[in-house]
Amino acid sequence: MDLIRTIVVSGGTHGNELTGVKLYEKWARNGEYFQGKCPSAKVLLAHTNVEATAACRRYIDKDLNRCFSRELLSLASSDVYEIRRAKELDARFGPKGPDTRTDLIIDVHNTTSNMGICLILSARDPFTMRASAEIASEFPDAFIYYQPEEREASPYFGTVAKADICLEVGPQPHGSLDAKLFFETERVVLRYLELAEEWNAGILQKKPRKTVDVYTQYKDIDYPRDSSGSVRAMVHPNLRNADYSELSPGDALFMTFDGEDILYEGAQTVHPIFIDESAYYEKKLAMSLTTKTTEEW
Amino acid sequence: MDLIRTIVVSGGTHGNELTGVKLYEKWARNGEYFQGKCPSAKVLLAHTNVEATAACRRYIDKDLNRCFSRELLSLASSDVYEIRRAKELDARFGPKGPDTRTDLIIDVHNTTSNMGICLILSARDPFTMRASAEIASEFPDAFIYYQPEEREASPYFGTVAKADICLEVGPQPHGSLDAKLFFETERVVLRYLELAEEWNAGILQKKPRKTVDVYTQYKDIDYPRDSSGSVRAMVHPNLRNADYSELSPGDALFMTFDGEDILYEGAQTVHPIFIDESAYYEKKLAMSLTTKTTEEW
Repeated sequence: MDLIRTIVVSGGTHGNELTGVKLYEKWARNGEYFQGKCPSAKVLLAHTNVEATAACRRYIDKDLNRCFSRELLSLASSDVYEIRRAKELDARFGPKGPDTRTDLIIDVHNTTSNMGICLILSARDPFTMRASAEIASEFPDAFIYYQPEEREASPYFGTVAKADICLEVGPQPHGSLDAKLFFETERVVLRYLELAEEWNAGILQKKPRKTVDVYTQYKDIDYPRDSSGSVRAMVHPNLRNADYSELSPGDALFMTFDGEDILYEGAQTVHPIFIDESAYYEKKLAMSLTTKTTEEW
Repeated sequence: MDLIRTIVVSGGTHGNELTGVKLYEKWARNGEYFQGKCPSAKVLLAHTNVEATAACRRYIDKDLNRCFSRELLSLASSDVYEIRRAKELDARFGPKGPDTRTDLIIDVHNTTSNMGICLILSARDPFTMRASAEIASEFPDAFIYYQPEEREASPYFGTVAKADICLEVGPQPHGSLDAKLFFETERVVLRYLELAEEWNAGILQKKPRKTVDVYTQYKDIDYPRDSSGSVRAMVHPNLRNADYSELSPGDALFMTFDGEDILYEGAQTVHPIFIDESAYYEKKLAMSLTTKTTEEW
């Protein structure tokens, strides 16, 4: 993108992911806090799922971060709180599409998986790639996950802006807070703002590129289930907290409740992430498999 | 107690604590599985909060494990699902009081706190003390927490029986499963049944006593909150995953969102447990402080 004129930093898209909620509250108490990091842009704060936060639940009626597709945003009305809320947020920060008033959304999430500070990129956007490469080089716990999205169809809040970063921070049980991750997340968000300032000044573009590991979405896999749909195996102990590690054909993937191994039968070595994210049991997702490349960003 | 004639092993008292739910399902598929471990008693299985399990939530209307007080069990009827369910369970396994048909309840729970296999004793009952001392000596991850209860007033399911053990197993995010903890919990439950068999044969009483660390309930403490009731600090990073460790006067206890330490101002050294249990934010409980003694059990 060219100049970054408007940035939205959001928390509470899932109401029980408290790092973003508490960062929002902290930042909202001090409006100048951000603006100083990126004076060349307008930096706005958003508390996205207000009612779910009050209930300390992921969502009230429907996952808000699955409500920003063109299809749902086009509904004239809805009984579903999160669809109405998505339309409000789109009216305020969008409208989604080429005429959106927001250049960049940074949306803060938590995960129960051992993912550190995962920087999720939905597109190969020049600014988010360059800035994320800087951050991945500076923060030992930061990893880059590239999950390409068709923007109009994508249900994620970030796709309301021209470009977006979704931060997935863990491991942290939903409804709780880890102080170390809280401050680390804050430092990463502030660093993105500084890098946006460098971008607007034409500095970031001229810096030497960084060599980074890029984990690219390959395939989501569900838990093994019985004929009634009930989960019939657990993630294998070898994979516990092993996000980003290698999983090769023949490696143990799941373990049944009787202690039998179920092996990975894919054709190639992959790198699983979102291993055992507790909010994804309902989404039929045991982990996301990625491929790993080393790139110059 | 004298002879242990009836034992109830239960899971799913909180519907999103999946170790107990999945152990129940496993055991229910094989009715002989238990009985062989303790032929001298009748061993029954219970899936306690069925509707909350179906919804993968802690509870539907009210925490079931706060519904077994004499006061609530005495209500003629209720609109609250869990109060109705408590009355059903009391009718089936109780009635709570001296005439209860159940001698021992083993209720399986999970916690997001780093508590290993916590053996919670509600009374200084000779069997549960002796058996728990054996288990604490055999399992490196097992710890004894003594939380004395006035049985008639106590809201816990276990108090429907003459004696009870509550297993709190973690760390595990609610709504997920850790295979290692799953099998370790199973081994502990089966070992309790073997020890009940030894008790009924008069063997366990004659074994040499074991020296064990006993963590006794001392005081529950809440998160610091602002005037609106909102949490204004996190558990200090020093205490992250530090269940059972020493906390002395002047040690860091919480950290505010601005990074300031809040110190422990109690008069004596204590040992916190249930640190940052995510389900306890709503209960206004940041951790439970215990005192540690070494005893011959």
